Amino acid sequence: MRKLYSLFLLTFSIISFSQDHSHAIGRKLRFPDINGYKTLKCDLHQHTVFSDGSVWPDIRVQEALLDGLDAISLTEHLEYQPHKDDIPHPDRNRSYEIAIKEAGNHDLVIIKGSEITRKMPPGHCNAVFINDPNKLLLDDSIQVFREAKRQGAFIFWNHPNWMPQRKDGMETLTDVHRLLLKEKLLDGIEVVNDQTYSDEALQIALDNNLTIMGNSDIHKLIDWDFKVPEGGHRPLTLVFAKERNAESIKDALLNRRTIAVYKNLLIGRDEFLVPLIENSLKADSAKYIGKYNVLGVWITNNSSVDITLQNQTGYTLHNNNDMIVLKAGETTTIEIKTIDRKSEISLKFLVLSAVNAPNKHPLVTIRTKIEQTPQ
Amino acid sequence: MRKLYSLFLLTFSIISFSQDHSHAIGRKLRFPDINGYKTLKCDLHQHTVFSDGSVWPDIRVQEALLDGLDAISLTEHLEYQPHKDDIPHPDRNRSYEIAIKEAGNHDLVIIKGSEITRKMPPGHCNAVFINDPNKLLLDDSIQVFREAKRQGAFIFWNHPNWMPQRKDGMETLTDVHRLLLKEKLLDGIEVVNDQTYSDEALQIALDNNLTIMGNSDIHKLIDWDFKVPEGGHRPLTLVFAKERNAESIKDALLNRRTIAVYKNLLIGRDEFLVPLIENSLKADSAKYIGKYNVLGVWITNNSSVDITLQNQTGYTLHNNNDMIVLKAGETTTIEIKTIDRKSEISLKFLVLSAVNAPNKHPLVTIRTKIEQTPQ
Amino acid sequence: MRKLYSLFLLTFSIISFSQDHSHAIGRKLRFPDINGYKTLKCDLHQHTVFSDGSVWPDIRVQEALLDGLDAISLTEHLEYQPHKDDIPHPDRNRSYEIAIKEAGNHDLVIIKGSEITRKMPPGHCNAVFINDPNKLLLDDSIQVFREAKRQGAFIFWNHPNWMPQRKDGMETLTDVHRLLLKEKLLDGIEVVNDQTYSDEALQIALDNNLTIMGNSDIHKLIDWDFKVPEGGHRPLTLVFAKERNAESIKDALLNRRTIAVYKNLLIGRDEFLVPLIENSLKADSAKYIGKYNVLGVWITNNSSVDITLQNQTGYTLHNNNDMIVLKAGETTTIEIKTIDRKSEISLKFLVLSAVNAPNKHPLVTIRTKIEQTPQ
Amino acid sequence: MRKLYSLFLLTFSIISFSQDHSHAIGRKLRFPDINGYKTLKCDLHQHTVFSDGSVWPDIRVQEALLDGLDAISLTEHLEYQPHKDDIPHPDRNRSYEIAIKEAGNHDLVIIKGSEITRKMPPGHCNAVFINDPNKLLLDDSIQVFREAKRQGAFIFWNHPNWMPQRKDGMETLTDVHRLLLKEKLLDGIEVVNDQTYSDEALQIALDNNLTIMGNSDIHKLIDWDFKVPEGGHRPLTLVFAKERNAESIKDALLNRRTIAVYKNLLIGRDEFLVPLIENSLKADSAKYIGKYNVLGVWITNNSSVDITLQNQTGYTLHNNNDMIVLKAGETTTIEIKTIDRKSEISLKFLVLSAVNAPNKHPLVTIRTKIEQTPQ
Repeated sequence: MRKLYSLFLLTFSIISFSQDHSHAIGRKLRFPDINGYKTLKCDLHQHTVFSDGSVWPDIRVQEALLDGLDAISLTEHLEYQPHKDDIPHPDRNRSYEIAIKEAGNHDLVIIKGSEITRKMPPGHCNAVFINDPNKLLLDDSIQVFREAKRQGAFIFWNHPNWMPQRKDGMETLTDVHRLLLKEKLLDGIEVVNDQTYSDEALQIALDNNLTIMGNSDIHKLIDWDFKVPEGGHRPLTLVFAKERNAESIKDALLNRRTIAVYKNLLIGRDEFLVPLIENSLKADSAKYIGKYNVLGVWITNNSSVDITLQNQTGYTLHNNNDMIVLKAGETTTIEIKTIDRKSEISLKFLVLSAVNAPNKHPLVTIRTKIEQTPQ
Repeated sequence: MRKLYSLFLLTFSIISFSQDHSHAIGRKLRFPDINGYKTLKCDLHQHTVFSDGSVWPDIRVQEALLDGLDAISLTEHLEYQPHKDDIPHPDRNRSYEIAIKEAGNHDLVIIKGSEITRKMPPGHCNAVFINDPNKLLLDDSIQVFREAKRQGAFIFWNHPNWMPQRKDGMETLTDVHRLLLKEKLLDGIEVVNDQTYSDEALQIALDNNLTIMGNSDIHKLIDWDFKVPEGGHRPLTLVFAKERNAESIKDALLNRRTIAVYKNLLIGRDEFLVPLIENSLKADSAKYIGKYNVLGVWITNNSSVDITLQNQTGYTLHNNNDMIVLKAGETTTIEIKTIDRKSEISLKFLVLSAVNAPNKHPLVTIRTKIEQTPQ
Repeated sequence: MRKLYSLFLLTFSIISFSQDHSHAIGRKLRFPDINGYKTLKCDLHQHTVFSDGSVWPDIRVQEALLDGLDAISLTEHLEYQPHKDDIPHPDRNRSYEIAIKEAGNHDLVIIKGSEITRKMPPGHCNAVFINDPNKLLLDDSIQVFREAKRQGAFIFWNHPNWMPQRKDGMETLTDVHRLLLKEKLLDGIEVVNDQTYSDEALQIALDNNLTIMGNSDIHKLIDWDFKVPEGGHRPLTLVFAKERNAESIKDALLNRRTIAVYKNLLIGRDEFLVPLIENSLKADSAKYIGKYNVLGVWITNNSSVDITLQNQTGYTLHNNNDMIVLKAGETTTIEIKTIDRKSEISLKFLVLSAVNAPNKHPLVTIRTKIEQTPQ
Repeated sequence: MRKLYSLFLLTFSIISFSQDHSHAIGRKLRFPDINGYKTLKCDLHQHTVFSDGSVWPDIRVQEALLDGLDAISLTEHLEYQPHKDDIPHPDRNRSYEIAIKEAGNHDLVIIKGSEITRKMPPGHCNAVFINDPNKLLLDDSIQVFREAKRQGAFIFWNHPNWMPQRKDGMETLTDVHRLLLKEKLLDGIEVVNDQTYSDEALQIALDNNLTIMGNSDIHKLIDWDFKVPEGGHRPLTLVFAKERNAESIKDALLNRRTIAVYKNLLIGRDEFLVPLIENSLKADSAKYIGKYNVLGVWITNNSSVDITLQNQTGYTLHNNNDMIVLKAGETTTIEIKTIDRKSEISLKFLVLSAVNAPNKHPLVTIRTKIEQTPQ
């Protein structure tokens, strides 16, 4: 009964939001800023009833607000319209327009985008930062990419590992993709989509200098598909942007300043991966335990993912073997047998829960001064 | 990417259901059968994008399956179509048809219904068990009720306490309602709607021999609005039916065999309330504690609501004052000072968490034989 | 290996306390001050290995600190020493001395006490605020009470409902008790002990002007016996004292300024019960919902017990029947149908989860101004 | 009040155990049997008030039962008796005797043991399976070892990394240890003690063919020190024994059939580590997903530790990078891109959460037939 009178709604929705969503405390995702950029949490591949999704765009906006996202794009399929009989909508801007209205004064960037939905090759691609999706309804798939680019799009290849288009899930570039790359019509690639991560997609990104993307591709409910009540979260693209707006996000994407997030896994280039992890794991304090020569280092993981380290410090640990898990949001004490006393220390760790290439893990350094205490 | 190919989906959805919804363990609602009837959990007032809701009908079906419901009705507003520009749908059967298809082989009864959405009087009413909602699109509101009845509908007054139609939330019958009642065009009344319960509506039900109803009137997501991850649940109408099918549910509704459920509150007539609570609270065992004359009675609450009792046994208790809370699904021991030893006992309790009239609580009896143990 | 070297321990225990007991967040009990008094949380009936308990006194101190208590007493049995073969201790001050040392700089009041452990009559009684328990080792039980009083003791009757001494759990005064009362040798009575509450003990307290007490009588572990990890808590005596010290606690006890706490039940005299509940339930704000005449009152329960109210406001509620549960630490909105608009309101509730006499509940009033908003 | 009358207690303790400890559901530790041996969970280094611990032996027995242990030893310090003034106990068998009595009919093996508590060298060592600790009260520390061996003891070096005896936590063998080894007076070594794990101790075990041990060395409460309510657990020695009795445990210990458990880390020799992990991770089923060539393997982790694997299968994964965490007690699906279809498969993984030597991880193989499904 609540949606009938909008004036009433306005008052009431504020009340009911704060009442009903108290379970949302703690689900907001967070990652530290790096390299002078803001770290923006983006999910640029989502669906609503305006293509083959199961929700009205308002739900996508509210899910994003609950998750603490900075930007979303509702990328309805251009060519795949299973709800067409019920929602004929000749204007492909509707999903965006409704989301913008719902977002209202909320601080969430909505990016206009569409999913170019073709057989392989080239498969499915998202064009985001377009002006008019209606003009993308063209027969020749290459012409669609050109029109999207003409509108200023950032274009990325979706789920190249998708089994209905790759029976073995082993994506490879085709001649059509090479054509798109040559003509600069393909800027990025999803290495993470929904419940999947792909080493092959990551290799394609690295080989072809593409932006690394991770998105939910949500059709039903974020809470259900990504087990949010049990502590799960959706895939993300972390975008390192000068400002928190669409223009800066586009600039960042075009310049490959991203990290994809999949469960606890971070995927990206060392240029961003290393500072993101180092900023997530700053030492709160470091001092020797009592009068002994075992050094305690207190580290709070200021990110929303558990980070798994492998000890490369050159020392053995007093409370761990060589693998250390730093839980999201928690403070962990690492006890290091430095043999004699130091005044400062640089601790090196391989990050097992991050990859900069298939099966390759970044090396991070935690530097800290050591508080002087009586021996 | 998942919804494109239905054959793929079919296989995959089974996998993803069992994987993704493990959090659903424990959310299925349950109440014992009574009086030779099956106790069916029904929510007969819901909305989708086909009126002013925010989800496609498939989400409503999946929510119902997760909650363990037996029957639902998607009661789109006939006269209120805020999504009309996007979803013109001249055929008002679409919401039902999509739900039926989604339910597929799942064991869920889908009942065709519509919400007659008028200014007060008579306000909003749901007509369920209709054949063709398209024929209800008539100007004269009384004619709509007559047409619904002609189709065999069960009709109930929705949220009579709804503030946009009753500034003070104090529903009363109007001449129009009396007309409907006289012509037997109104069978039931919601005493529970969404986040509200109404003593006045209950009194109207009792005074006019109407069926007592409780429904979610959900527009967004059940999980969010009723805090399911924190242990909450939607409002329900418990329907006491001969069989688990639409025909039997209709028969039960027309014969007022219902209880409304709102959070932990049960609202109904003693004829159903008393056996439902007594069957929910059967004693597992009863025996004296050691050689002493204090009787332990172990009671498992086999319902999905916490039940609060007030001691009317005539005895004092060893582990409680006069108020006892029996948590849903848990076993509680009540220790009773019977002074001397009994061989069987009839314990009377007033049920504070149930009402059979405004501020009136049913009296239940838990009878049990007492295991004979050495004194 | 940790307990060997105390200097090491001192440093290390600070670290390990903050590390190991993060689960303790939230278990600290709290109740608001009233009537110009501080509300002190006391548990004055506990055991250690120095009589028939299972822990060294340091565990009792640490449990109390985790629970946020203000005062404890380790009341070892004078006459019952089952560990005597292992712990002969001729000096009955040892339990107290060890606790005092453990408490160290912690802000916890340790009260010297002993349990006079006799057959019925008079059964078991605790003498607290004594100087020297060794002098209480006398044959004649009445002489023990006199000696305790000579030392300045506050004396209370323990668990008068204890089945090994009352087969039916139905405590009554005996001639010996009347003698003790007449000679002013009995000041209080436990209406709550361990897992029991007694209406009969409460009646004896009221009839004889005794101090109402509630204590854990813990022998093993507080966490296990009172299900602390699942949200349970030990029984308490809330003492309303001028200052937070032993002297003031004794003064309060002698003047019957107490409330016993058992699970969510509060037991006491209206003089203290009413202000404690009223201070626990102050309205955060009150305003009409939108333009309607339904008043929302936001109430935060600032105590550690769930409080169950029965509506005596004279109005019906929009979101509740007549029973309202205000969960500990949570904010609840009560929506009241005041019919027309008020500028302030006095809401009366019977408190079902508190008793001032067997089966009698206090009446509390929540007064609040109403924020003026557009109609 | 509960401990006074044992007959009463017996009846009552059964009731109160099942009532009070429902939080214990799920805390029982479990590991699969291997190599024709029973996998017994043992904690052979614990303290009570009979040396410097804080609890009576009954608490240690109850903690062990709650944790589902098979065997414990209460290894009081022979030479360190800080409670001596209160507990003079000339007979060092008391702790064992009380535990045996408490264990009663419970199915828990109690092993008689003592901690030989000397300055370094040789530091602290536990002698378990002794007959008479009183005879170990000798001045010459080597003589104590000889007497223990004469009684048939299994002797292990405790926490060689203990900072009060090794300022830098870097244990090394001394001439005294070499003497003990040469005379076969030292059988094992703790690589895990309390909150510590030691690579150096593991190396000493391997170099000198010693039994690998892990123990809690508990002084206060298991629940507090190892955060049991939050899902933590105590250190363990898994002992692979022919039967579930003291004799078989001793035989297993003398023959080095053990694994130490520290949080999620397993430490042992490949001979036991590999089958333990392989038996913990048997594949429930394996089949290709739909008509595609991506293989789903469902694996339930039947142990009480999270197991972290590194992919060495030679294939890439569809839902993971190279690191996979299999949570204790949960079923995980690993999706493997096998390129073409197989009828059976042998999956190799490096176990990052297990060590067979400092920084060395065992390699396990999960073999499974693949259910044939339509392509």
